[in-house]
This record gives sequence, structure tokens and C-alpha cells, in this order.
Amino acid sequence: MDDIRFAVLGTGGIGRRTLEVATHRDGLTPVAACDRNGVAIDGDGLDVDELLDATEGNIASGPSDERDVAPDGGAAAGGVKQHGEQAGIVASDQGRETETPIDDVIAEADEIDAVLMALPNLEHDFIPRVAQRFADADYGGVLIDVLKRSRVIGMLEDREQRLVDAGITFVCGAGATPGLLTGAAALAAQSFVEIESVDIWWGVGLKSGYEDNRGTVREDIAHLDGYDIESAREMSEVEIEALIDERDGRLVFDDMEHADDVLLERAGVCDAEDVTVGGILDVRQDEKPTTTTVSVTGRTFDGETGTNTVRLDDATSMEANVNGPAIGYLKAAVSRNRAGDYGVYGPAELMPTF
Amino acid sequence: MDDIRFAVLGTGGIGRRTLEVATHRDGLTPVAACDRNGVAIDGDGLDVDELLDATEGNIASGPSDERDVAPDGGAAAGGVKQHGEQAGIVASDQGRETETPIDDVIAEADEIDAVLMALPNLEHDFIPRVAQRFADADYGGVLIDVLKRSRVIGMLEDREQRLVDAGITFVCGAGATPGLLTGAAALAAQSFVEIESVDIWWGVGLKSGYEDNRGTVREDIAHLDGYDIESAREMSEVEIEALIDERDGRLVFDDMEHADDVLLERAGVCDAEDVTVGGILDVRQDEKPTTTTVSVTGRTFDGETGTNTVRLDDATSMEANVNGPAIGYLKAAVSRNRAGDYGVYGPAELMPTF
Repeated sequence: MDDIRFAVLGTGGIGRRTLEVATHRDGLTPVAACDRNGVAIDGDGLDVDELLDATEGNIASGPSDERDVAPDGGAAAGGVKQHGEQAGIVASDQGRETETPIDDVIAEADEIDAVLMALPNLEHDFIPRVAQRFADADYGGVLIDVLKRSRVIGMLEDREQRLVDAGITFVCGAGATPGLLTGAAALAAQSFVEIESVDIWWGVGLKSGYEDNRGTVREDIAHLDGYDIESAREMSEVEIEALIDERDGRLVFDDMEHADDVLLERAGVCDAEDVTVGGILDVRQDEKPTTTTVSVTGRTFDGETGTNTVRLDDATSMEANVNGPAIGYLKAAVSRNRAGDYGVYGPAELMPTF
Repeated sequence: MDDIRFAVLGTGGIGRRTLEVATHRDGLTPVAACDRNGVAIDGDGLDVDELLDATEGNIASGPSDERDVAPDGGAAAGGVKQHGEQAGIVASDQGRETETPIDDVIAEADEIDAVLMALPNLEHDFIPRVAQRFADADYGGVLIDVLKRSRVIGMLEDREQRLVDAGITFVCGAGATPGLLTGAAALAAQSFVEIESVDIWWGVGLKSGYEDNRGTVREDIAHLDGYDIESAREMSEVEIEALIDERDGRLVFDDMEHADDVLLERAGVCDAEDVTVGGILDVRQDEKPTTTTVSVTGRTFDGETGTNTVRLDDATSMEANVNGPAIGYLKAAVSRNRAGDYGVYGPAELMPTF
């Protein structure tokens, strides 16, 4: 575990923060990163500071090979800068332009232990299809994503045998929710023999992080009443601003489609329908508008009913709670992969490594 | 995972509750149990209700083969009934008398996937020595304990290569604390890049469970100021009652020697010295005298300091919080064992299975 050579696909908020948080954790060497137009590869380790400078404002969070994204995909993912001032990996000294960023990383697969896919999630099958391409190239390592939508899990399960054959250990939904909070729910459930409900409630204050996380905000909008994935993808930046203005910067979500439900069912904790996810996103303050809390209510073997709770401090940012766990799960998955354990895991099935 | 054939060594409070809680969980078949004087073995599954009736008041919690326990060990473990009314497995229709209960279970090792060692812990090397005997018999399965003392972990690590060679996956400290709360601390730590402190504070109300858990109470007394393992082991039941009376039934513990510290250090979360464990045990009420809480304080990658907390509902009994996780960790360890993953694990390294 002393040396994990990892790659990041995508340099939007999540990809960039993964590179940054990894510098604070032991045993992690970033050897490849890519975004829409560029790739940086260095087996001796990328210069993270220089990459972060170059990709600041790189709000087109994901690389999109021509065969992955429809012609309007660029704009849809919010990539307002890609034809303009050349922010992104191509602007970095370590980067070079490419039309096939993901394939360029796959070409280095032998040198990579783990790949974090910080890709735009508005097209559901994008991550499963990228996973398939790694499998087709006989990549035998870890793939990890921070996806949110329940329906993507099934797409990965459909491909599980192919991933196993290649020697891939895939961890899906390994951010905050799903991710840290899903794992916390599975652990908090251990006091009980039957789970009545799991309630996940999150608060995010995203004033200073807003520019860096426009992709995430767009994804969240798709969860609002009256919106769906297609309509959110087609909104212009101006329309998004208008929607946010209307609500004074605060978006409230009830019972979102979040993969915590299917991931907890997969882990045998409860039925997916017993899981509720909601929260408040405020893009006009950095303080969390509400405290992120997981409440697990169940019945004990001795007939009592109770609720165990996990609370994240309001001082911990969304970025800390997404990227810390993502790296913890990545490290845990590398252990599993090296032990010869392949297939699809959820965050309630692995203890993330510190 | 559909069928785990497990054994329990010891039918004190923890062993008995393990058998009971397992009846509420899927895929677990108890095939062997033993205590000081008896053993019950049935490959088709033991009748748990009948065993629980027979072992009620079986406060000598552990089997003690002649080579394991000094002549005074019986009394020391609190086994006031063993010369009297024959409570225990020998009183059960399924049980038979034996002078070598542990060896009798080891003789069936081929038929057993996992063994929970609910043995008296006042002799530190007892569990490591029993593990060694399973290894010597080439048992290739799971061993799990709910031990508490930090120093035992090192004794297990010293034997790790022998356990690996035999094909044993050992989970140590897999109850409540260490166990569930250690795992919760490791998970709560994921928001941070550096941990300042882990504080574990527990409350146990043990009025109606007192008779069943005298062994645990005696162990706890060894943590009080002015007491140690030897003096606690040598106390008579009358002396213990007097001590409890003096304190109006309430024992308060500060900074106990609990293995959460070394187990969190093992998992890379923090230094052992950053971990504090304390709590209140009240043997005159069933209500918890204080809420069991884990607080993890750390620094995020973006420079904030915060405290994530995990709280167990006051309605969840000690038994629910010890035996639920023990079974969860047992199930997780069987998965690891079947995947060919051997050695010593702590509760912060595995996600317990529900």
C-alpha cells in the first residue's frame, strides 16, 4: 500500500480536489490526469500545484472523447471556456492536447493502480461505458466513481462479469452521498436486527466553491421538482442563474434519486424504498444551511426501537466530505484488488482506508 | 455467504447473546458451542432456545481446558455455579460433559466457517493461545473476539504469520468498543486529512442484564483507579458487590486501556495516544446513564477544524451494540476468508456486513 499510482479522469471540481486532497494523504502518486481537450501523464508523479493552477475555472469537468458525447455535450456539461481561453490541462506545462483523452490514459493502464472517474454524470451510461473500455483494454486495477444516480448501479452490475474477467475492482458511489454517508448508515445499522428507515440529510454551502462545482449544481437541479436529467442538461448558464435567483440561492431537495438506496439494499442493510435522501444547497454562503446527518432507525434483537445518528461538523466542506472518502475508498479498493478480489463494490461494503 | 456455520466458545453473556442475535440474522447456522464443562455440537444446527435455557445464569463465561487456566481460574472467572446446580451446556439435552471443551470444538474445525471466542479476558494471552491451537490444528476459517485490552493486539500480531499459514482470518476487538465505535471513528475520520483526537464515551445500563454480565463487570473494574487486572481477578463476588454499593451502582471510567487506540493506529487513522475511551456503567438501572458517542476531531484539507460525531440511541442495549457488530464483522471476515485473505484485522479495517 506504500505506493498507489492513480489517475483522475476529469478536472472539474471533483477531479481537481482529488488531486489536491491526495497530496495530504500518504502513499498516493498521481501519474495521469485528463480533461476534455488535454492529458498529462508522468510516471514519476504529476506536479499537482501546477495542474491546479492551469485547470482553475475548468468547469467542463469531464473529458469527452468524440465517441462518448453528442455534439452538444460540450456546452451541456457547462464547458464555457473550452473554445476560449484554454483553461485546462492543455494550458499546463505538463499537458498536451489530445482528441482522445480517455484512450490516452487507458494506453498507460499498465502503470496505473487506480483511476478515479470524476466525469460528468448527466449521461447515465457514460461511466459504465468508460469502465467497459478499461476492461476491454485488460486494465487490471481499481476504478472508482462518485456518481449519485441509483440507476447507474444496475448498469455497472450488468458489466460485472466483464470487469471481473479483466481483474478490475470497481467502487461506485464513493463520495459523500452516496459514499461516506452510505457507509455510515451501514455501520450505524449494526445495532439492529431490522432497519425501519435510513434518512440522509445533507447541507452544502457553496459560495466560494460555486464556480468550481457548476457541474455538480447542474446535476442537483435535475433532482428538483419539475426538472429531470434532460431538462437540466439543456439549460443554459443564464437559465441556471435565473433559477437560483428565484430561490434566493437556496435549493431544497426532498427524496432525491440518490444511489444510497440501492447501495444499502445491495449491502443487505434494508430495502431501497426505506432510504430517503434530501438536503439543502446554498450557493450564496459557505456556511452549511443545515447539518449533514444520517439517521438509522431500527429494531434491536431485544425488541427496542432506536435511532443511531452520524453528524458531520458544519465546518467540513462538501469537498472534504466527497474527496476524503473517495481517496479512502480508492485505497481500500487497491488492497482488495491486490488480494485478487474483483467486481463491483458499494461504499457500504468496504471500510475506506485512512 | 448464504450459509455460515459458526461456533461460540463460551456461554456467558456475550456467547449466549451471540447465539440469540444470530437467530435474527440471515445465513448463520450455529453448529458448536462450549463452556467450562460442556460442549454441544450439531452439524445440522443447534437448538438455540434450548441452549439458552440451559445456560441461563451461566456466569462462568468461558470454557477452560486444564492447560489454559490455573487451578484458581474457575473462581476467578466468577463461575460460582459450576460445582453446584450444573447450569451450562452439560444441563442441555444437546450438551455433553467434557474436560477439553475447546479441543472438542477444534476437532470439528473442518465443519466450521467461523468461531466467536467469547472467552474470559482477564488472562491476556488466553485468546492468543486459543488462536494458536486452532492454527496448529490447521483450521482455515475465521476467528473473532470481542476483547478490550490494547496489549492483546500485539500478542495476536506476533502470531500473525502462523495464522496466515493456516488460512485463518482473525478479527480482534469486534464488539462495541472496540468494534462498532472503532469502525465509526475510522469512517468519521474520512472528512479529515489529519486527526487531532478520537473520543469514545459510552453509557451502559445493566440492571436486568447484570447477572448475565458479571464477567464483563469484573473486567471493567480492572480499569478503575486503584485496581488492575490481577486485583480484579482475585476479588470475591462479595467484594465486587461492596465496591458497587459504595458507588451507588455507578462506575465511572476515564481514559481506560481500551484497544480502540491501537486498532485505530493500526488502521492508520491516528496515533494511539490521540484516542481516549471512557464511560459510565450503571448496574442499578437499565436506562443508559449517558449517551454513547464517538467524536472525531480533525483538520480538513482546506484548513478547517471540525468534529464529526456518531451517537447510538439510548434505547440500544450494550448487548445489541456488542453482538450485532460481532456478527456483522464475523460475516465480513468470512467473505474475506473465502477470498483467500488471511491474517489479523481490526474493526476499523473491515466494513461489517449486515
